[in-house]
Amino acid sequence: MLGDNNFSHLDSDGQARMVDISDKKDSVRIARASVTVAMSEETVLALQKGDVPKGDVFAVARVAGIQAAKRTSDMIPLCHPLPLNSVSVVFELSEVKVDIEAEVSTFARTGVEMEALSACSVAALTIYDMCKSLDKEMEITNLVLLQKSGGSSGDFSR
Amino acid sequence: MLGDNNFSHLDSDGQARMVDISDKKDSVRIARASVTVAMSEETVLALQKGDVPKGDVFAVARVAGIQAAKRTSDMIPLCHPLPLNSVSVVFELSEVKVDIEAEVSTFARTGVEMEALSACSVAALTIYDMCKSLDKEMEITNLVLLQKSGGSSGDFSR
Amino acid sequence: MLGDNNFSHLDSDGQARMVDISDKKDSVRIARASVTVAMSEETVLALQKGDVPKGDVFAVARVAGIQAAKRTSDMIPLCHPLPLNSVSVVFELSEVKVDIEAEVSTFARTGVEMEALSACSVAALTIYDMCKSLDKEMEITNLVLLQKSGGSSGDFSR
Amino acid sequence: MLGDNNFSHLDSDGQARMVDISDKKDSVRIARASVTVAMSEETVLALQKGDVPKGDVFAVARVAGIQAAKRTSDMIPLCHPLPLNSVSVVFELSEVKVDIEAEVSTFARTGVEMEALSACSVAALTIYDMCKSLDKEMEITNLVLLQKSGGSSGDFSR
Amino acid sequence: MLGDNNFSHLDSDGQARMVDISDKKDSVRIARASVTVAMSEETVLALQKGDVPKGDVFAVARVAGIQAAKRTSDMIPLCHPLPLNSVSVVFELSEVKVDIEAEVSTFARTGVEMEALSACSVAALTIYDMCKSLDKEMEITNLVLLQKSGGSSGDFSR
Amino acid sequence: MLGDNNFSHLDSDGQARMVDISDKKDSVRIARASVTVAMSEETVLALQKGDVPKGDVFAVARVAGIQAAKRTSDMIPLCHPLPLNSVSVVFELSEVKVDIEAEVSTFARTGVEMEALSACSVAALTIYDMCKSLDKEMEITNLVLLQKSGGSSGDFSR
Repeated sequence: MLGDNNFSHLDSDGQARMVDISDKKDSVRIARASVTVAMSEETVLALQKGDVPKGDVFAVARVAGIQAAKRTSDMIPLCHPLPLNSVSVVFELSEVKVDIEAEVSTFARTGVEMEALSACSVAALTIYDMCKSLDKEMEITNLVLLQKSGGSSGDFSR
Repeated sequence: MLGDNNFSHLDSDGQARMVDISDKKDSVRIARASVTVAMSEETVLALQKGDVPKGDVFAVARVAGIQAAKRTSDMIPLCHPLPLNSVSVVFELSEVKVDIEAEVSTFARTGVEMEALSACSVAALTIYDMCKSLDKEMEITNLVLLQKSGGSSGDFSR
Repeated sequence: MLGDNNFSHLDSDGQARMVDISDKKDSVRIARASVTVAMSEETVLALQKGDVPKGDVFAVARVAGIQAAKRTSDMIPLCHPLPLNSVSVVFELSEVKVDIEAEVSTFARTGVEMEALSACSVAALTIYDMCKSLDKEMEITNLVLLQKSGGSSGDFSR
Repeated sequence: MLGDNNFSHLDSDGQARMVDISDKKDSVRIARASVTVAMSEETVLALQKGDVPKGDVFAVARVAGIQAAKRTSDMIPLCHPLPLNSVSVVFELSEVKVDIEAEVSTFARTGVEMEALSACSVAALTIYDMCKSLDKEMEITNLVLLQKSGGSSGDFSR
Repeated sequence: MLGDNNFSHLDSDGQARMVDISDKKDSVRIARASVTVAMSEETVLALQKGDVPKGDVFAVARVAGIQAAKRTSDMIPLCHPLPLNSVSVVFELSEVKVDIEAEVSTFARTGVEMEALSACSVAALTIYDMCKSLDKEMEITNLVLLQKSGGSSGDFSR
Repeated sequence: MLGDNNFSHLDSDGQARMVDISDKKDSVRIARASVTVAMSEETVLALQKGDVPKGDVFAVARVAGIQAAKRTSDMIPLCHPLPLNSVSVVFELSEVKVDIEAEVSTFARTGVEMEALSACSVAALTIYDMCKSLDKEMEITNLVLLQKSGGSSGDFSR
């Protein structure tokens, strides 16, 4: 059951604030997220064809995702700026979609769920951007947190 | 049917580039996108309760979405930097989800689809961030381009 | 007398948005702002003494102010990104204060008041930062718009 | 009495540098700052009226202030990039002004005075921006450091 | 022969400013720059070997270069923010070096020399970063403006 | 001799990633880099003449270099965001060139070579920018890592 004010980003008057993590301990924290870019079979074929530089589309999207992880606290107003120990973004192309998974780790006082979600989100937007001349019906869907570990709130696994 | 290289962001050697828009004309261009944050009934109730500052959650997410629209070309590698004439982001809360819609307009040589999609995406991530202490199972889903107008490639409506 | 909703950044439901400037015309627009950093006589003397590199303090503050003008739309959520034609920041040191004045010009659909105010503000913060080991009682005060010209809302002069 | 070169940001040749904090110890450091936006009674009334979304103006300004605290080292040239443990920004509206107070904490080798001052400064600029269609005579004034604690230079309280 | 103050970024008192381009005309402006990353034969071989993902190194460097072109005015204090019509970055690997060439175009009141030079510079730094575990003796050298066209100051070709 | 995949930024499939530094230890790490801006004798003279504000050109370039060090992880895709303990940038003007040297230190899990190289690079670009109305033939050359210390990979000195 929810209490009256369970939103950790809002103070007792309901005003937004960056929550105080002074009393939290530094620990290894890892988060994984995933997202899907649903697209037409033709767009997937174009990505797969040898004369179409599939590798490059994913290379650009991977860089965009990694940079987004680093800029999360600049993009999402109440996120804490965190040092990141690693970021990786992988892609899997199947018949009518690209699946993206990102993993981020840190040694810090708070977790990196938003960093993993941001990496997925911006990698997906970059694929959309690079394919939109072919297909405007693409859909970015199913962005979820797959797993997190570390920190006092315990591990989470979807 | 697709030709050999329909990806406008890739040059004839398949290398990424920012496509040349020198020959395109400035015109009024508008794009609308939408996304859904699916969440538990309890989380929606917490957002709705008077003592929970719903307005503020959406206010923070709205600001984040507007700023994301302005930073699109910084976030997505091959987007052109564009002046924006307007950005708006609206929210609709229903039983188990928040629907978000963003509209962006410009007077420029290329469209603002990515700006509208980025605004939706970052607004949704901000809601996730502000509610994640309550609900880690939320899902950001159905990010699509609803409509675009202006420019030589013609209007699009989903 | 004020109407019910004169805040141009808020839509009819009172929600923040970046106001639509589609119907406004590009024109030359200029704004000037000023601010004062009040400080102890000792701090001013330290700035004035030959062996203290006054020029450099102001040089750093000037660069910071110019860059702040360029980043205004990134810093202030509802500002439009604008091309800037010129930015200048000048300093005048007197007995117990530094006066700063910034002038910004553009050819655009909306004015550069916020750019001039941001330049002053960040230049003043930079002076504070560089002198704070000497004087923590400094006060940044009297930040005002001195003058604006261009645009349909008419000229303003304080 | 001041020595010949008390400016910690300037090296022995009077050149700007980011001062070396290698020998300083990590400790809890807190800073509070405040600023006032002086405005006409009519503007305050407009902010107070029920049909004018006062909450939203402050919500936008609060987000802007929090983000400015995080970007301080990007905005002020010689500031060190610091992890922040918390940031809060509060507003108090009275007859002819809005008072703003910001508090920032960190666990780091140097203090967060500039972060608290930046948060106040940008929150005030955001209020100015949102009210400037009503009132161009507003004045942002009295930006001061109220208090700092932590670090070897000792506590300060105005 | 040089007059007393030919530095267009410095005003009559020798203070830095962003020069006024109000009286300049919008026109098509193009600039090309190049740079070389000199490296050991072993490093070049590693880049060339099939099992070493050469394409990816260049893909990352290309994205970094394109983004640097877009952020030039944020990185170089007195540069004007400009819309860019196109950016491309190409690489050529030979026995002991990588040659990089960047081309940028705009339709604006001032040229894009700095954008082309920044793209080269950051692409080269990215290659350095990705190869530095193999070779710390690399040298980034010969960064020059190859050619510019457009604008009243006339064309330039090295 | 090189193994099959010595590029630490590329995973076993040859895809770019931000390398995992979780197992590395925090330690004091220092790096120094240098670069040269070769220019005509006339340009050097203009920089040296009393009525030409040489100090200011270098002051602007110094600020740009320091800020670039802080933004390295934003500019170079696979760099880790790091706290910096100090940054300094010095210039030496001789007959036909300006030599620039930057030193950066941190207490972190990875080194600051890229930060020192970025500071040099952007300081050099800023000098180019400020002198380009006089001399378009300038060349930015010889950007190298002079020295690094700290960390398990050992010290390096050119």
